[in-house]
Amino acid sequence: MNSPSIIALLYGPDQPGLVSRVSSWIFLRGSNIVHADQHGDPEAKIFFQRIEWIPSGQIDEEAASFEKFATVELGMNAKVAQSTDRPKVALFVSKIDHCFHDTILRFRSGEMSGELACIVSNHSDLQVDTEHYGLPFYHIPVSKATKAESEAEQLRVVHKHGAELIVMARYMQVLSDGFLDKAGCPVINIHHSFLPAFAGGKPYHQAHTRGVKLIGATAHFATADLDEGPIIHQDVTRINHRNAIPDLIRKGRDLEKSVFAQAIRLHLDNRILVYNNKTVVFD
Amino acid sequence: MNSPSIIALLYGPDQPGLVSRVSSWIFLRGSNIVHADQHGDPEAKIFFQRIEWIPSGQIDEEAASFEKFATVELGMNAKVAQSTDRPKVALFVSKIDHCFHDTILRFRSGEMSGELACIVSNHSDLQVDTEHYGLPFYHIPVSKATKAESEAEQLRVVHKHGAELIVMARYMQVLSDGFLDKAGCPVINIHHSFLPAFAGGKPYHQAHTRGVKLIGATAHFATADLDEGPIIHQDVTRINHRNAIPDLIRKGRDLEKSVFAQAIRLHLDNRILVYNNKTVVFD
Amino acid sequence: MNSPSIIALLYGPDQPGLVSRVSSWIFLRGSNIVHADQHGDPEAKIFFQRIEWIPSGQIDEEAASFEKFATVELGMNAKVAQSTDRPKVALFVSKIDHCFHDTILRFRSGEMSGELACIVSNHSDLQVDTEHYGLPFYHIPVSKATKAESEAEQLRVVHKHGAELIVMARYMQVLSDGFLDKAGCPVINIHHSFLPAFAGGKPYHQAHTRGVKLIGATAHFATADLDEGPIIHQDVTRINHRNAIPDLIRKGRDLEKSVFAQAIRLHLDNRILVYNNKTVVFD
Amino acid sequence: MNSPSIIALLYGPDQPGLVSRVSSWIFLRGSNIVHADQHGDPEAKIFFQRIEWIPSGQIDEEAASFEKFATVELGMNAKVAQSTDRPKVALFVSKIDHCFHDTILRFRSGEMSGELACIVSNHSDLQVDTEHYGLPFYHIPVSKATKAESEAEQLRVVHKHGAELIVMARYMQVLSDGFLDKAGCPVINIHHSFLPAFAGGKPYHQAHTRGVKLIGATAHFATADLDEGPIIHQDVTRINHRNAIPDLIRKGRDLEKSVFAQAIRLHLDNRILVYNNKTVVFD
Repeated sequence: MNSPSIIALLYGPDQPGLVSRVSSWIFLRGSNIVHADQHGDPEAKIFFQRIEWIPSGQIDEEAASFEKFATVELGMNAKVAQSTDRPKVALFVSKIDHCFHDTILRFRSGEMSGELACIVSNHSDLQVDTEHYGLPFYHIPVSKATKAESEAEQLRVVHKHGAELIVMARYMQVLSDGFLDKAGCPVINIHHSFLPAFAGGKPYHQAHTRGVKLIGATAHFATADLDEGPIIHQDVTRINHRNAIPDLIRKGRDLEKSVFAQAIRLHLDNRILVYNNKTVVFD
Repeated sequence: MNSPSIIALLYGPDQPGLVSRVSSWIFLRGSNIVHADQHGDPEAKIFFQRIEWIPSGQIDEEAASFEKFATVELGMNAKVAQSTDRPKVALFVSKIDHCFHDTILRFRSGEMSGELACIVSNHSDLQVDTEHYGLPFYHIPVSKATKAESEAEQLRVVHKHGAELIVMARYMQVLSDGFLDKAGCPVINIHHSFLPAFAGGKPYHQAHTRGVKLIGATAHFATADLDEGPIIHQDVTRINHRNAIPDLIRKGRDLEKSVFAQAIRLHLDNRILVYNNKTVVFD
Repeated sequence: MNSPSIIALLYGPDQPGLVSRVSSWIFLRGSNIVHADQHGDPEAKIFFQRIEWIPSGQIDEEAASFEKFATVELGMNAKVAQSTDRPKVALFVSKIDHCFHDTILRFRSGEMSGELACIVSNHSDLQVDTEHYGLPFYHIPVSKATKAESEAEQLRVVHKHGAELIVMARYMQVLSDGFLDKAGCPVINIHHSFLPAFAGGKPYHQAHTRGVKLIGATAHFATADLDEGPIIHQDVTRINHRNAIPDLIRKGRDLEKSVFAQAIRLHLDNRILVYNNKTVVFD
Repeated sequence: MNSPSIIALLYGPDQPGLVSRVSSWIFLRGSNIVHADQHGDPEAKIFFQRIEWIPSGQIDEEAASFEKFATVELGMNAKVAQSTDRPKVALFVSKIDHCFHDTILRFRSGEMSGELACIVSNHSDLQVDTEHYGLPFYHIPVSKATKAESEAEQLRVVHKHGAELIVMARYMQVLSDGFLDKAGCPVINIHHSFLPAFAGGKPYHQAHTRGVKLIGATAHFATADLDEGPIIHQDVTRINHRNAIPDLIRKGRDLEKSVFAQAIRLHLDNRILVYNNKTVVFD
């Protein structure tokens, strides 16, 4: 189980023989498939595949060759990773700290196939805790007037650390389209409602007013349209009439931590494909 | 456990001594409280209570006396029922039959504290099955032109059978305000989404398009504003990218049956209070 | 989506090239894979695959050829089915009727890829309901003295109807080893606890005595060791101190229906492989 | 909502007028009930009540008077607490740190009505982290030979800090009967299975071997009989054939954290009554 493996995520127009051509390419090099999952969307006529194998040869060379094969010969969209990859992750926070601690502790415990590179915050509240964790902390205040400048500074930090993923742990600022464009990597956000219900601000207050019997949390990729990006993971918990808004917030914290962490893990394990503003999650 | 009990549902402005005055009234008659639950909404300053007791005297007289006490002396809104009550229920259906069978079978099994009095449908598809169940079936077609007339006929049936509750088991017609007014009894509807997400038509299609990871069902009291009435019960189930719309519909059927049945049971067990378009459910 | 497909369930010792050889066999005949899922157990060194494809040629011939290829050339254990197969199912019941109705209604609704062939019961209580459903009912009383004879009669019924699956919907008798041997088809049972907790009789009473906070249901293949067969599906629901045993039984009925139905559906959709007294469920 | 309240947990033989006598005692002092919940076990003929009220007079005096009233006049078993109480809690850990961090962070966030007083461990692994949290850490090694001595030392620490609750966050040692007797306070343990299934060691390995489809966690009061104490809270999560034992352990960590935290919170909120080796949880 410990041999390094190659993981490929592929998608593109469905065409006959894709499973066969992909698996034969691997077999003919003497490599061994350890897991494979295929899915076709019959309406969109798109084929999706996640395939993982132990390479017979030098892993970097085999991964690069496969990527060329998949994109050039098969005409597929391909992401090719290695099980030993540890992509750098930038964690954005404000003052709320439950997802902050939870995320850092999960990375520390080895639960995540990646490495937390830096903490970026518009407040300094979590600086001391960050230092205890031994992580670099960047305090970049954001105001309406300085937003553009602040985002430029955030991008410098993200890029300096080579982050390949940004995760927003209840970061209470909207990122501009420009930021998302220039970041050059996916951004995962956690929203504290069961989207599309209660998009926007104060979702627990909205939920309390409407009198729903379940509250939820949603992890999604950030896009220009706030709370409208592709949904990665969701969960809910039951509430009752005895629960006031502080109870909803407390119960919600557990949901947010768990849903956010699972979304990050699924991404770092190369299990998520995005198309048509939706996700295919090979879990 | 078998002695008949009185169940009172009370609500009104909070005032000191309510628990004491209610429980002392019962105690001083030599009656015995078997269950009591109180809840106060500190914002709305409203007090809610469900209390159940074994009467010492003649049950009808004690129930009537208590109702007078609660409304006149305490100034509360009071519903006083008896554990042996078996209110008549009218079941509205169209062609979709899963909630229809499920509801009838639950009444037959003794799971519901009520009695199914009649089936009303705008189609005749479920007539034969209804007859096998030994229940009266009323086929009342509804068209735009005849809606007023059809609703008048529906009301005649509901009133003839003395129904104290109408339950809409995927009945695919909107009831008019006039109908709801004249019915003189609550109407419980099952909506096949996790409201307020995906209100309106074709919620499973909406859910599929948005790419949510959970689908839901919501039982609520019908009001003039469609899908906006007080929510009684909700539940969700997990879906994935392999689930096409027919899978969502199949999985949703189980949710709808279960959520609808629990809402009906909670109502017939006198566990639901409504205020501010929300429910307090003493479960 | 409507073209008939071939579904193969394969397992056997892991060996390099299995995915490639299987998918190439299909591709070289001009057929088109619509879904494939592979799993390897790294400890047991066993490979599992469920693969579904639209045949290019005559379906029966292609299915037979593939079976020969998989068993003879690959040395795998293979079950090859067609999406249009509608295996006959025998439903065993006693007096308890919730799984009985639920199962029949699901077959009627088209939710199951199979056909209910007959109802077998050691009591006559459900005879009238069975006749309303238009299904043959066999009343075969069972007593200690007549058990062997009764089982022989049950087998005659099962074989006369060509049943390829027996499902025990709260059938309150233990089937002998001899019966299971001679039945020549899988038997699915529903147990009303979260196995291995509360095996044996009266599991809800056991759960109440122990004071657990969740009750469960387990669908499993019947084997000589009662309640010890391979587990197919399980689910739980929350209970509290206000729930007496009748409440546990009521809540459990919903669990049993749902868990039993999902197990039957998974089996009829050819999604279950059994090895080492465990199941691999491709869902 | 912010006025300090008195919370009483009562139980004892059922007798007429208990609700009335308790609520009248409160009313006649001019105090105001904010929440009350009663439950009677009809088999055991025991009455349980949790009642919370805002005192009209001096809170300590009123709490003491009520306790006397409940025990002497009503003959009930009574625990009387105040909403502002912050009982000291001792946290026992070994090397596994997920429940350790989670518990400390929840206390820090104000989620718990108590105060973490000290960390006791048979290993020094978590000493540095404990110091970052600013909490006292006691490294008390335990071996077979020194067990009695180590427990005596643990008790000195517990008593020095005035702990009224001990919580075992995956503390990998069995506490002796003597320890439990002398501790003089409840001990909450988290077991990593859905008890009574998979009691004892290595429950995730047991679960994997049996092939269950759900894994669980159970928080219970520690008693002389390991894993046999009164169950406070349980939860489960779904697993599948792709999950090897490390996946079960990872998924189980989230269950353990959440179940353990909820049990501690319920206890500190005075919501748990124990009788007949079971719990009544007023949630």
